[in-house]
Amino acid sequence: MLTLADSALGTTTFADALLAPRSIALIGASSDLKKNTSRPLRFMQQHGYTGKIYPINPSSTEILGVKTYPSVTQVPDAIDHAFIMIPGKHVIGALEECAAKGIPVATIYSDGFAEAGPEGQRLQDQLVSKARELGVRILGPNSIGTANAHSGGVLSVNAVFEMKTLVQGNISLVSQSGSMMGSLLSRAASRGFGFAKSLSVGNESDISVGEVVDALVDDPETRVILLFLETLRDTRTLTAALQRAQKAGKPVIAYKLGRSEQGDALSQSHTGAIAGNNAAVDAYFDANGVMRIEMLESLFETAPLASRYAQARPQSRSMQAPRVAVITTTGGGAASVVDSLGLKNIEAATPPIEFVRHMAGRGLTIRQTPVIDLTLAATSAQYKDLLEQLLQADWCDAVLSVVGSSAQFHPQLAVKPLVESVKPDTKPLVVFLAPEASESLALLQQHDIAAFRTPEACADALAAFFKPVITQSDLPAGTVALPANCPTSGNFTEVESIRVFAELGIQSAQSQLLQPDNLQHGVPYPLVLKVVSRDILHKTDVGGVKVNLKNDADLAQAVPELLQTVQGHKPEAKIDGVLVQKMEGHLLELMLGYRDDPLVGPTVLLSTGGITAELMPDFAIRLAPVGLSEAYAMINEVKHSKLITGFRGLPKGDVDGLAQAIVNFSRLACVPGQPITEAEINPLFIQSNQVMAVDGVIRLKD
Amino acid sequence: MLTLADSALGTTTFADALLAPRSIALIGASSDLKKNTSRPLRFMQQHGYTGKIYPINPSSTEILGVKTYPSVTQVPDAIDHAFIMIPGKHVIGALEECAAKGIPVATIYSDGFAEAGPEGQRLQDQLVSKARELGVRILGPNSIGTANAHSGGVLSVNAVFEMKTLVQGNISLVSQSGSMMGSLLSRAASRGFGFAKSLSVGNESDISVGEVVDALVDDPETRVILLFLETLRDTRTLTAALQRAQKAGKPVIAYKLGRSEQGDALSQSHTGAIAGNNAAVDAYFDANGVMRIEMLESLFETAPLASRYAQARPQSRSMQAPRVAVITTTGGGAASVVDSLGLKNIEAATPPIEFVRHMAGRGLTIRQTPVIDLTLAATSAQYKDLLEQLLQADWCDAVLSVVGSSAQFHPQLAVKPLVESVKPDTKPLVVFLAPEASESLALLQQHDIAAFRTPEACADALAAFFKPVITQSDLPAGTVALPANCPTSGNFTEVESIRVFAELGIQSAQSQLLQPDNLQHGVPYPLVLKVVSRDILHKTDVGGVKVNLKNDADLAQAVPELLQTVQGHKPEAKIDGVLVQKMEGHLLELMLGYRDDPLVGPTVLLSTGGITAELMPDFAIRLAPVGLSEAYAMINEVKHSKLITGFRGLPKGDVDGLAQAIVNFSRLACVPGQPITEAEINPLFIQSNQVMAVDGVIRLKD
Repeated sequence: MLTLADSALGTTTFADALLAPRSIALIGASSDLKKNTSRPLRFMQQHGYTGKIYPINPSSTEILGVKTYPSVTQVPDAIDHAFIMIPGKHVIGALEECAAKGIPVATIYSDGFAEAGPEGQRLQDQLVSKARELGVRILGPNSIGTANAHSGGVLSVNAVFEMKTLVQGNISLVSQSGSMMGSLLSRAASRGFGFAKSLSVGNESDISVGEVVDALVDDPETRVILLFLETLRDTRTLTAALQRAQKAGKPVIAYKLGRSEQGDALSQSHTGAIAGNNAAVDAYFDANGVMRIEMLESLFETAPLASRYAQARPQSRSMQAPRVAVITTTGGGAASVVDSLGLKNIEAATPPIEFVRHMAGRGLTIRQTPVIDLTLAATSAQYKDLLEQLLQADWCDAVLSVVGSSAQFHPQLAVKPLVESVKPDTKPLVVFLAPEASESLALLQQHDIAAFRTPEACADALAAFFKPVITQSDLPAGTVALPANCPTSGNFTEVESIRVFAELGIQSAQSQLLQPDNLQHGVPYPLVLKVVSRDILHKTDVGGVKVNLKNDADLAQAVPELLQTVQGHKPEAKIDGVLVQKMEGHLLELMLGYRDDPLVGPTVLLSTGGITAELMPDFAIRLAPVGLSEAYAMINEVKHSKLITGFRGLPKGDVDGLAQAIVNFSRLACVPGQPITEAEINPLFIQSNQVMAVDGVIRLKD
Repeated sequence: MLTLADSALGTTTFADALLAPRSIALIGASSDLKKNTSRPLRFMQQHGYTGKIYPINPSSTEILGVKTYPSVTQVPDAIDHAFIMIPGKHVIGALEECAAKGIPVATIYSDGFAEAGPEGQRLQDQLVSKARELGVRILGPNSIGTANAHSGGVLSVNAVFEMKTLVQGNISLVSQSGSMMGSLLSRAASRGFGFAKSLSVGNESDISVGEVVDALVDDPETRVILLFLETLRDTRTLTAALQRAQKAGKPVIAYKLGRSEQGDALSQSHTGAIAGNNAAVDAYFDANGVMRIEMLESLFETAPLASRYAQARPQSRSMQAPRVAVITTTGGGAASVVDSLGLKNIEAATPPIEFVRHMAGRGLTIRQTPVIDLTLAATSAQYKDLLEQLLQADWCDAVLSVVGSSAQFHPQLAVKPLVESVKPDTKPLVVFLAPEASESLALLQQHDIAAFRTPEACADALAAFFKPVITQSDLPAGTVALPANCPTSGNFTEVESIRVFAELGIQSAQSQLLQPDNLQHGVPYPLVLKVVSRDILHKTDVGGVKVNLKNDADLAQAVPELLQTVQGHKPEAKIDGVLVQKMEGHLLELMLGYRDDPLVGPTVLLSTGGITAELMPDFAIRLAPVGLSEAYAMINEVKHSKLITGFRGLPKGDVDGLAQAIVNFSRLACVPGQPITEAEINPLFIQSNQVMAVDGVIRLKD
């Protein structure tokens, strides 16, 4: 758990002050009920907050019957949390008063900071540095606030809290968008989903999403954590919090924008954060057990599935599609959801003949089809029995019940077998209701049964659920040393890169560095000849490569030609010599990449190379380092790797060697201090019994 | 309009009898109110049907106060439509009575027909042949019935009609799934979407989806036609009806299963129809102006957009993404929908500087960003003015308004500028409401404004809307003759195929057919040598191809070797000789395919070939024949064609020649009688100034 630095918190922890303050100051509370700034007080009165509220407004003595003070410093009691709603330029002053009063946490609604451009960014920088100096933690600025549905503590101007009663529950929401916090709460409430805590992090200048998640991990009222994200910031803190959430068995579900390029671009303009790469973000979520859903409402709709069956999520990656047993009383409804599942690579599993016989022995005839249709035959008792048998069967990973028109007109009857059946927490039961059936949905929700309004949301949730919680390589950081005499800044030459690859355990094609005045060497012909210079990243662009040199005479002629061409293109480049490299054959060429991603940290990439990769991307990306099993999964994910796994009778390549090369290369993340910003082996040749780096670059951080 | 054959319809048309019967027989109506078969009478009484109802039941004299007859033949008045609800084996008898009574249309609820297996299929065949003989048209069997919301004529047992009042409207639904008819009606009703007609076609043994659509085109109460489809049947009738719907300005929106392989497989087992190919189905819908949506609820949610802006759909294909101007009062809400639009390749358009200046001149400051955020500044009047200016602007194809929390708490206020603005029917205005806001949704719906509940549905609808209504090639059928002396069954030899390609205007590599005893020829070396036999489809599999023969001696040696190998593999094959073909170079190899698809009819396919195509499909498919503009669009769709359009400085290929080759090849659909089942040019070589068929096959129908 994070602790407060230099705060005068006394017995209130940071988490309590943030999530469950017992006394609140509303700085800038208005007595004009038409103004947003009058809302928090009204909301708290409406929702029965029993803590102390201190409106702060120099021009009022009382608002809505509550005594009002001109400054927090004049409040007689201790204050856990201040909600600041005054114009941006006055915020630093207010913060100083908070510090003087010993208030540990301030949520800042005021805008005009980083979101407003460079000048606002400067003001925000001042604010943060002042807050650090004063020891006051900040949520925001530009935060729409926080709400505790259990205490009624609503430090927020969001209109959503006009709702008559706050639905209490065990879901907590952290949102990078203030307005979407309200939208999500309203949508969830209409479905009967209750919340524990909801927080808008605004510009996330100090308290980050990660810190809030960390606090929620320890919150006894929180069972599931939802994230509405536009970007990722401070992933180090977030990663630690996500890992703690996983250990605590609290599922984290995320809806993150930036799946499309234009969404990503928007996100940046919205937040000023550095460019995100959607695939890297996916890898990050996978590595930290986060269930990323694709549809807005799935964010809360997935919560019952995620929380009840947290222990049933796959703990390792299977090459097989997840298998769902589907039972229905509506053929068309089942077909809709099965089609949607298919688009997410989830299999509607056909019962094996043993199971058909097993059910026959229990008096129920079912057919061996991917959808078990009970439209005609079954009683409620038989339905319940089938459910229970399926939930114990070993040929499916989940059971999906698709309910027809009874859900609309006879909700009690429709949900009866679902509610009454014995449901182990080790295999999910999910429900899709084909008609409009809000009452059935609510009943199922009350019984903690995961039920979905649309076939698409059902498939979305199951796809997120069945993503494995990936085991990261257990190789600790800082265990891989770079060879001696490596550069400490800029680019490595190919010769230096080859030495690093060797240190990592990755073989390169046989080669030798030569000087133009002595071309004696021990590399067998035919050869490739390359210029060696740390100033030249793209050798072919400057004529720095010649292939298929067959003998000493070829070489003797080629070297001066090559050097002349290179110097013509790039006269300022310092040339270390030329590399002669044995020409190797291959069954497949791939590319291995390493990147310390600004958003998610070290990643490893396996990809096709060249123009094909640009036309039709074919790659797999993971957080680095990876273990062997994930390396095999990456190979499986790259479609072109079928060319070395026996597809259509093609000769097989060294898949084991490739997997080991991925593992080894990903260990660049384990170099102490992570000095490498990017590295690439391109091409990596896959041969029948070995893999071989044929060219590569390494670039250090500035 | 279709007419009834041999019917005794009198003044009632087929469409009236099907859609708006004035007198109805309920054959098998039960007096036991617990039974499904009691429902239609009750439903019609409840929903105020004013026509005549004749329950038919030999063991009752009266049901629910309505006189009951033992047989339709004893009903004194004329009957437009019979609804048959008796066990399957008695249906043919009932049909004979209908014919005797002169009833033109019978909807058959009874099951136990094709959906129940081979025996049921035989019973259905008997039923259909009896119906044809008697001149009675059948909807079903296994149909859940039909409903006319305006007349209250509900010939259906679907529980959905328990609803207190049928919401009347201008949307009509044709469903291949009975249960989903009810599910869709209930979902639509909860959103205030009213229906005109809804029909379940059941096993579609006689009256097809196409015939129902045709009838709905002439129905004055129907403005939009919705299709819930599991498969396609009788596309000839459907195509004609869809074309009529288009001419009549009645949009057709389809949700079709079978997008995933497992969904497709299920559909088949469900209906017994021949395998569908999802891409071919897409091509079919595109060619017939059908808006295919991907999400179940988009089916009705898209209706207001489709109907109001029918004339604004693009009439030709643009290579540019559709551009949507986005205005919002909620940044996060707009970001959600913009991200979803991006996934569907719809651009959130940034206003040009001229427009920003234009608005400044009208007193509103907006920024040049892809989302116009009015959170702070604007009044309702300014919002309305901006809307109106955007709806007249030439830099966007649609306007999207994203409404925030006001939609939830101040619906009248939130929809005011949307309702009050002047909205031309030439450019769509669509609305996404970020919070739960059912009242705002209903208000917008009442004002015929297309509003969406979720960002995903909004993107889904716009993507379907912006699919162009493709102009088919106007080349009439039957205008392309095959050369003389072509085979009339089986496979063409390569030599025969080359002649057909030449007739179509597609050049093949220079070649000559030789006999082993005379290898004199006029084709320049180097050569490819191939066996010629209509019994051998895959020449390389039997050693029937040798490449790079450099001179006469090579050829003399290769021919007997080749023949011996082929005869070893395939001794029974009749060999017509050997083909020598000039070895050609290429910038790109592609594959051209033609197929008379069992579901959608003739199609033309442009694709990459070989193993790459299997690993990562890269193709475009259209109904054949195609015109030049669609041929260019196909080229644009195949990602690998970038390799001949100047990508990364690569030499350009003959794109115009390729487009013309696609057009020419697609004209195989214009051969009288469409005798060809499949044809393929593989590979088609794209050179810098010409395209050239290098190998090809043609297969005739059995």
